[in-house]
Amino acid sequence: MSRFFNSCYSQLEPYTPGEQPQDKKYIKLNTNESPFPPAPGVIAAVNKQEAENLRLYSDPELKPLKKALAEAYHVEPANVFVSNGSDEALNFAFMAFGEDGIAYPDISYGFYKVFAAVNHIASDVKPLQADFRIRPEDYKGVGKAVVIANPNAPTGLLLSLKEISDIAASNPEHVVIIDEAYIDFGGESAVELTKTYDNLLVVQTFSKSRALAGARVGYAIGNKALIQDLETIKFSTNPYNVNRISMAAAVAAVQDPEYYVHCSQEIIRNREYTTIELRKLGFFVLDSYSNFVFARTDRINGRKLYLDLKDRGILVRHFDDPKICEFNRITIGTRQQMETLIETIKELLELTTTAGGKV
Amino acid sequence: MSRFFNSCYSQLEPYTPGEQPQDKKYIKLNTNESPFPPAPGVIAAVNKQEAENLRLYSDPELKPLKKALAEAYHVEPANVFVSNGSDEALNFAFMAFGEDGIAYPDISYGFYKVFAAVNHIASDVKPLQADFRIRPEDYKGVGKAVVIANPNAPTGLLLSLKEISDIAASNPEHVVIIDEAYIDFGGESAVELTKTYDNLLVVQTFSKSRALAGARVGYAIGNKALIQDLETIKFSTNPYNVNRISMAAAVAAVQDPEYYVHCSQEIIRNREYTTIELRKLGFFVLDSYSNFVFARTDRINGRKLYLDLKDRGILVRHFDDPKICEFNRITIGTRQQMETLIETIKELLELTTTAGGKV
Repeated sequence: MSRFFNSCYSQLEPYTPGEQPQDKKYIKLNTNESPFPPAPGVIAAVNKQEAENLRLYSDPELKPLKKALAEAYHVEPANVFVSNGSDEALNFAFMAFGEDGIAYPDISYGFYKVFAAVNHIASDVKPLQADFRIRPEDYKGVGKAVVIANPNAPTGLLLSLKEISDIAASNPEHVVIIDEAYIDFGGESAVELTKTYDNLLVVQTFSKSRALAGARVGYAIGNKALIQDLETIKFSTNPYNVNRISMAAAVAAVQDPEYYVHCSQEIIRNREYTTIELRKLGFFVLDSYSNFVFARTDRINGRKLYLDLKDRGILVRHFDDPKICEFNRITIGTRQQMETLIETIKELLELTTTAGGKV
Repeated sequence: MSRFFNSCYSQLEPYTPGEQPQDKKYIKLNTNESPFPPAPGVIAAVNKQEAENLRLYSDPELKPLKKALAEAYHVEPANVFVSNGSDEALNFAFMAFGEDGIAYPDISYGFYKVFAAVNHIASDVKPLQADFRIRPEDYKGVGKAVVIANPNAPTGLLLSLKEISDIAASNPEHVVIIDEAYIDFGGESAVELTKTYDNLLVVQTFSKSRALAGARVGYAIGNKALIQDLETIKFSTNPYNVNRISMAAAVAAVQDPEYYVHCSQEIIRNREYTTIELRKLGFFVLDSYSNFVFARTDRINGRKLYLDLKDRGILVRHFDDPKICEFNRITIGTRQQMETLIETIKELLELTTTAGGKV
């Protein structure tokens, strides 16, 4: 820290992204990326003409992408905000709607507490239940903004649309943000509810089901007045937030829903396979509605399993939080990758058995 | 504005970017883009392989680009911060270093006052001299942060490195930000001075001389502690701020300095041509060190000239600020574009003469 650093940020603890090691090739199951490439139309959109046009600014109003998303979700373009990854949409939503504080689960996307801290917003952290479920009652009439990942991460567990409706209806004077990064893997989106609740903001991303993590495109859908507030923040910080090629790629992605439904279905099948195989090996695995599973075993502690898998070329995500440190979050990849994972875990368990129990 | 909007942002007046009309083709001389395409290596870097890799997150540490920039500027990678356009670097610098307020010229990049407002930083606005020059004395020992565009926009006028040194030396307890968006068109960069002054931060962009406005890449160079503070802000708001393809494009751009020096020299020649021709027509034209000229004539008022040029398919930038509303800022394009501009202005002046004087 320099001696010039603003004292209101001097205590900040930044977010730690999942590791992106450059030293060797891993089976990378640690940051919930898609194992499939983007749709053929996306590949075609990244071309020489677009490269030459990079000399020109991107469209700060992102009109073609707003139009494509509006058509896909049966809303108006004015109901859509587009961001440089969904992290940006979330940060702007914290800025715009966090004045009275914000409530969120203790086990969830680790960035929420950082967005709150950087914007000097009071966090009201609600513990998950013992079964790792969110208790909807904790968020009803809570008198401040709410942010809930649905499905939640790293648990993969899902709230119903009825539960989300109830939370939105009970907080008419505060914005309820539903972070649907993982909604396309078996959940049902709350986008339709934004037509009923003018305080409901749904945030999504192109990084997961649409296989564009490296393009950095996210979006939020909600009442026009909420979207206008996010635009005010954007045009006061970084108007040209999304680059030309990422916008072209995202438009092409929205135009090929069949391809992505197909990919998501394959991921769901691989998730079911992985869940069943891990349970056969004695793992406790939560019922995931996302593109990852959250699992622990009594036979190897969480951190050791993470390290042993890394040694063998498989990266998963481990969190040090004592409440979940026995778990690992494992991204669902291709069937072949998941078979390799299961075989590797079997070997590790056999070593453990030979060594005489839990290590 | 929604009823939920944070009251601390309710008075914000967002920045207005230059217009990006979609209705017809213009000779676009309004947002200081390059008339030349990016270097051949950049075009080659935007390819099918990169498109397929978009499924993977970008490198949040942006190592290859930091390395390339560090080599180009003879600094260490830890002296380099990379941002989603230089607007992001500037906003982060305001957040990080603006605690005691910030001084900047009244006529300059219009975003500075917005960055100050969104971050609740007191602005100390210093009038330019009557000749549109910055008075360096206004910024010496000023007791707060300083941000100066050098060359300044929209004037195109340049401070010397001696003047910048003096400002940095006289404010040892505050950061002096030099915004060098236009430095490659005849100015001398202050990057070397960052080795002497630990409070000097130089911000640059790929949008102008490197012809990558649509890729959204900017950077800041300074003392490692300053850079670390910017990283703290970034990792607390948007860690994956630059997408994969823009990073690849920017690395390729840094690796072909000859191409860009050639382009900048051509732009400088076209600027000299434009300046001479406008002066022949009786225009008052400031001595620009950038890729635009700032010019006015007694024969047509500033706003009318902007509108008449737009009618004839040429877009320039006009500002309503009464101090400069008689001027237009004209981006330097190709020789052919500038010849068309001059011919069009000649026609407009003839119409004015026929109509009997200034309109």
